[in-house]
Amino acid sequence: MNARLITLTTDFGQEDWFVGVMKGVILTRIPGATIVDVSHGIPPGDVRSGAFALRAAYRYFPPGAVHVVVVDPGVGSSRRAIAAQAQDCFFVAPDNGVISPALAQAGTTSVRQITRTSLFLQPTSRTFHGRDVFAPVAAFLADGGAFDTLGPEIADYVRLPLPGPVRTEHGWEGEVEYCDRFGNAITNIPNEWIAGANGWQLELAGGSRYAIGGCYSDVGEGEVVGVPGSSGFLEIAVRNGNAARVLGLSVGSIVRVFAGGETVNRHGGD
Amino acid sequence: MNARLITLTTDFGQEDWFVGVMKGVILTRIPGATIVDVSHGIPPGDVRSGAFALRAAYRYFPPGAVHVVVVDPGVGSSRRAIAAQAQDCFFVAPDNGVISPALAQAGTTSVRQITRTSLFLQPTSRTFHGRDVFAPVAAFLADGGAFDTLGPEIADYVRLPLPGPVRTEHGWEGEVEYCDRFGNAITNIPNEWIAGANGWQLELAGGSRYAIGGCYSDVGEGEVVGVPGSSGFLEIAVRNGNAARVLGLSVGSIVRVFAGGETVNRHGGD
Amino acid sequence: MNARLITLTTDFGQEDWFVGVMKGVILTRIPGATIVDVSHGIPPGDVRSGAFALRAAYRYFPPGAVHVVVVDPGVGSSRRAIAAQAQDCFFVAPDNGVISPALAQAGTTSVRQITRTSLFLQPTSRTFHGRDVFAPVAAFLADGGAFDTLGPEIADYVRLPLPGPVRTEHGWEGEVEYCDRFGNAITNIPNEWIAGANGWQLELAGGSRYAIGGCYSDVGEGEVVGVPGSSGFLEIAVRNGNAARVLGLSVGSIVRVFAGGETVNRHGGD
Repeated sequence: MNARLITLTTDFGQEDWFVGVMKGVILTRIPGATIVDVSHGIPPGDVRSGAFALRAAYRYFPPGAVHVVVVDPGVGSSRRAIAAQAQDCFFVAPDNGVISPALAQAGTTSVRQITRTSLFLQPTSRTFHGRDVFAPVAAFLADGGAFDTLGPEIADYVRLPLPGPVRTEHGWEGEVEYCDRFGNAITNIPNEWIAGANGWQLELAGGSRYAIGGCYSDVGEGEVVGVPGSSGFLEIAVRNGNAARVLGLSVGSIVRVFAGGETVNRHGGD
Repeated sequence: MNARLITLTTDFGQEDWFVGVMKGVILTRIPGATIVDVSHGIPPGDVRSGAFALRAAYRYFPPGAVHVVVVDPGVGSSRRAIAAQAQDCFFVAPDNGVISPALAQAGTTSVRQITRTSLFLQPTSRTFHGRDVFAPVAAFLADGGAFDTLGPEIADYVRLPLPGPVRTEHGWEGEVEYCDRFGNAITNIPNEWIAGANGWQLELAGGSRYAIGGCYSDVGEGEVVGVPGSSGFLEIAVRNGNAARVLGLSVGSIVRVFAGGETVNRHGGD
Repeated sequence: MNARLITLTTDFGQEDWFVGVMKGVILTRIPGATIVDVSHGIPPGDVRSGAFALRAAYRYFPPGAVHVVVVDPGVGSSRRAIAAQAQDCFFVAPDNGVISPALAQAGTTSVRQITRTSLFLQPTSRTFHGRDVFAPVAAFLADGGAFDTLGPEIADYVRLPLPGPVRTEHGWEGEVEYCDRFGNAITNIPNEWIAGANGWQLELAGGSRYAIGGCYSDVGEGEVVGVPGSSGFLEIAVRNGNAARVLGLSVGSIVRVFAGGETVNRHGGD
């Protein structure tokens, strides 16, 4: 069997040697392994952003992929290390909720606490489990190791309390879940919920209303538009601009959508 | 046939999952494919910088390489997607000029509009063609797919109006085309144009003049020097300093070179 | 023989095309080569940080790995290019001390000046030896080329004067050697020197004292703790905070450890 692909999602950044060393550990165990960086730019300790990135990315990788996530503010404490088997892939991470949104979506069949310490690098540090725990376990799974042998099955793994949109009289009230490099503010309102019906509108705090279109170019330079985002959720964008900055949006900002309505402001910063 | 190498040049940054997902799409179609990041730090939407980076880089990759460029402010609009076959490699990009400087140099034999939508990821988003259009097409070409089947040949692809240096009485007037991480300001004046003859000098706005040497270490710490750059064009550098910052240079800044001349300032900031 | 793995540690950043081009040169010579980024975020020209990162990382890679380091403020000058053979791996770098701390640790058996110019890219630039000199030499070694043929053996390669901790009445006085992305300040005091004995304490400039624990979570949110770091040296951390920023630490800051002591401040910024 060829080894399975491994992906890495961490808050390690790329200035230091941490990511490289994780790859070294994997490649020592599986020469020539295919390892893909999903992101190492998750803000330090930001479990919610890590969870969002993983859920947006994991389904675009080949069947059998092993997804390692290390956003781990509790490293070295008594928090557990876990692995999960889903319909088409595996996950390996600290038990802090960072993989739970992906697990909920991926058809997870089993979650286990990782207790098979013989797989770990020795001595095992208490500050860098990415290298000493998660990389070796990922290599084990990628190399065809038996998932069932990692440790006991558990049901009480941590679920991240990700807020969902709530129904309003004419639509939904959700919030910004992630702001990307371009300043697009990705909400927690699924694209499907606003599909079909024409004339959906977007309302931000303060009451400004904007059209929902199909792509960034549906509005003029510097104008605001809601678009069905590529991660499956409504995004708020400014054409060739930075919506998060222009509109003062950040994770948690309230976003309302509703069918119909009258006034639409299209200019950024109104 | 082994798959061809694929390179990626984008403005996606590496904080989000966009680059990882493009690789996932490629690796789903070509397990074990070799994918190299040229840069993901092109400023958002900056077609000119993307074009410069690609042209500086593409010729150092193995024959047959497929170069994917996604700097795409018009994604989702009616702008076309194109692919090009050159003497020794392929290019895949939005039709906004970002590959045109490389095409002009690479001995391009054919440019086609990509209309073969059956290659695309389904459903095809209108905001992330890197994932849904360009990655699949690159995988198709890298896997030996027939270039001719991508769509109709076109002659009117967008050419980026890259300014060239103009002749002056004693030399050339050009401009800064790119500032790199070290603060070196790379001009559009080819190294060959100032080779051979000794005593070439550099003049910046304001009239300050500097020597042109062979490498950064030809001058003292903090001094300004023009050098034949590794990308094939004259660079303005400050030894162990940041020329762009010290001299206030940015893309578009005027640079003159001429043979002979009297006064030479060597200190940065004069 | 399968090609050896190659690692890259540079100050090139990832905004420009420099790293990608080095990989292109390697992959042109060894199709499918495994290349791992250790870091490209070494501050420009900072030989000491590059040396620290390399030494922290190199031993986690497979036997035979070729470690290329390009932090090279003297590129193009008369500084030599060198390669080293150690017990289990190879190093390739400019002769400025950047590999010397790793060499001292790795059981180095031979250091050679690289004079075999026929390996280099032609023409060989004077400003980008990463591409023209170090990448080709690394590919040569990774492909099984004979180390002995690179050039004459030398004994006078540059040693970086890395300060070591000095003995004090009750412990050691060392200094901060590296601050990582999380703001952890990594010292030059080996973990082993403070292992075993309980009650070791940490003293910073100004006289504030802190406990030394086992992991970040041994103290409360925002509190300061010394921990045995994953790179083998004592680290100063603030739980879920940035110690370098909170405590004003940077490379060179004095750190004392001693057994016993009375007052311990645990709050950051005291």
